[in-house]
Amino acid sequence: MLDATHDPGLHSWVASANDAATEFPVQNLPFGVFARGADVRAGVAIGEEILDLAAAHGLGFFSGGAAQAAEACGEMLNGLMALGASPRRALRAQLSDMLRSGTAAGERAMRHRGELLVAQSEVAMRVPVRVANYTDFYASLAHATNVGSMFRPDNPLLPNYKWVPIGYHGRASSIVVSGTPVLRPAGQRQNAQTPDEAPTFLPSERLDYELEIGLFVGPGNDIGTPIRVQDAGEHLFGLCLLNDWSARDIQAWEYQPLGPFLAKNFATTISPWIVTREALA
Amino acid sequence: MLDATHDPGLHSWVASANDAATEFPVQNLPFGVFARGADVRAGVAIGEEILDLAAAHGLGFFSGGAAQAAEACGEMLNGLMALGASPRRALRAQLSDMLRSGTAAGERAMRHRGELLVAQSEVAMRVPVRVANYTDFYASLAHATNVGSMFRPDNPLLPNYKWVPIGYHGRASSIVVSGTPVLRPAGQRQNAQTPDEAPTFLPSERLDYELEIGLFVGPGNDIGTPIRVQDAGEHLFGLCLLNDWSARDIQAWEYQPLGPFLAKNFATTISPWIVTREALA
Repeated sequence: MLDATHDPGLHSWVASANDAATEFPVQNLPFGVFARGADVRAGVAIGEEILDLAAAHGLGFFSGGAAQAAEACGEMLNGLMALGASPRRALRAQLSDMLRSGTAAGERAMRHRGELLVAQSEVAMRVPVRVANYTDFYASLAHATNVGSMFRPDNPLLPNYKWVPIGYHGRASSIVVSGTPVLRPAGQRQNAQTPDEAPTFLPSERLDYELEIGLFVGPGNDIGTPIRVQDAGEHLFGLCLLNDWSARDIQAWEYQPLGPFLAKNFATTISPWIVTREALA
Repeated sequence: MLDATHDPGLHSWVASANDAATEFPVQNLPFGVFARGADVRAGVAIGEEILDLAAAHGLGFFSGGAAQAAEACGEMLNGLMALGASPRRALRAQLSDMLRSGTAAGERAMRHRGELLVAQSEVAMRVPVRVANYTDFYASLAHATNVGSMFRPDNPLLPNYKWVPIGYHGRASSIVVSGTPVLRPAGQRQNAQTPDEAPTFLPSERLDYELEIGLFVGPGNDIGTPIRVQDAGEHLFGLCLLNDWSARDIQAWEYQPLGPFLAKNFATTISPWIVTREALA
C-alpha cells in the first residue's frame, strides 16, 4: 500500500540520503543493529548515517504505536517483530516525518543531529535478530532444475517439486552478518568413479554460494495453529539479501536421504539491514 | 568417572528418594525447569520432590564453582550449559552432600525443607533450555535399515551410511515438553499407485514416533573452530528421552531431495529432566 512515506519527491535533511546512488533514501528506512564496542543498539539507515532509535525515543520523537515499536527494540529486533505490523507502520510514518526536510519534526531532529545520527562507517553491524529457526526453501523452477542437475543429471526435478514447497531447516547459529570471513570447510566426500573405495576427508574444492532473499517472519503463530494464506503477509517483517554458502562436493556425498547438512551449515551470510514489507509496498 | 555421588549406599533425608522404584534417587540429581504460575525456576529432581536451586543458593548451601553454577541458572539452563563441566560437577557434589542423610549440610537442609522442596505434583515442567539448534541424527544401523525400507524398500541403506554421520536440522521451536498434546498434522501426500494424479491434502493417516535419546550440547564452539573428538565429552551437558513425531505419509511425498520437513516439525517431545553426563559415569 503506497502512502506518503513512498513519495519520490521526499527530500531528507540528511544530505547523503538524497544522493541518487544511495541505497538508503528517506523512502527506504530499513532496520538494523549496530555496535560501537560493547554498546549495541537498534537503528534505521538513512544515507550514510544511522538514526539511533533509542536516542530518538529518548528525545520524545515518537508517540502512540511508534513509541511502542521503538521501546520494543533493544539489542535485537525480535521484540519489534513480535509486535506485528501496526506499530511498525506507525514508527515508519513518524521516522519519515522526522527525517524529511520541511516538517516541524525534521527541523527539530536536524538540531539534534549530533545525538541522533551515527556514521555507518564508524560502527560494526550485527545480525539484527536472534534467529530461532532458519528454513531454506528450494525456490524457483530454474534454480531447482539447475542445482538438481549437479546431483542428479538424469533426474534434476523430482515429481513433488511443482506441488509442495520443498525446503529444509538450516542451522540458525551459522547465520553471520555480511563481511564476516567464511572459512572453507573440510569434509568427507566420495569419488563417484571409485564408489567401492573409502571416502576422503579434505577441504572442499567446490565451494559455492546461492544468492537468495531472506524473509524475517514475525510475530508468527502458536504451534499447531496454522496461519491462513490471506493473513501470511501480516507475518512478514521484512527482507534481506542472503548468501547460502554450499560445499558441493561434501553435499553430493552426504545429502541422501536426509538432505543438506554439514555442506550447508558452516556459514550463511545476511545483509545487515532489514528492508520492511512497508518499504516495498 | 565414578565418585562419592554414585555410591549405591547413599540414603537421602527425602524419603521418596529412597523408594526402590523412584527414577530420582540421590545418585541421579537431574536438572529441570519448573513453573508455579508465572514463577519459573531451575531445580533438581529428588524422589517425588524438586530442590529449588535459587532457594538453596539463597540459603548459602553452595560455594566456589557450585555457587557459580547455581547463579548461572535462571528460567533456562543455558547459562549453566555455557559454563562447562567443572562448575556443574562441583554443584553435583554439593547437592549430593546436602540431600543425603548423615551430613552436616543434609541436617541443615532438612530443617529448611519447607523452603527448599516443592512437590513435583504441584508444578508444571517446562522445556529446560532455549534450544538454539536441534539436529536429528539417523543413528543405528537397525533403525536406518528399518526406516529406509519404508521409503525405499529396494534400497533402504544408502552407500554413505556407514561412512559419514547422517543427520538433518529439525525445527528448534517445535520442541515441547512431555505431556504437551500433539496435534495430528494435515499435509500433502501422493498415492504411489496414481503418480499422475494431483496429490491430496488431508490429516496424516500414518502418524508415528521414534523413541530417541536427546543430547544437550554445551558450552559449544565458535563457528569454524572444530571440537576435537577427544574433547567432545566435555561439551555434553546431559541427556533426555525424546519422541520424534513423524507423519510418514507426508514424509514419503515431501522428503526428496532436501530431507524431512513438515512431516517432522509439528512436534518433538522431550522429557523435562536432563540427566547429566556425570550421573551416568
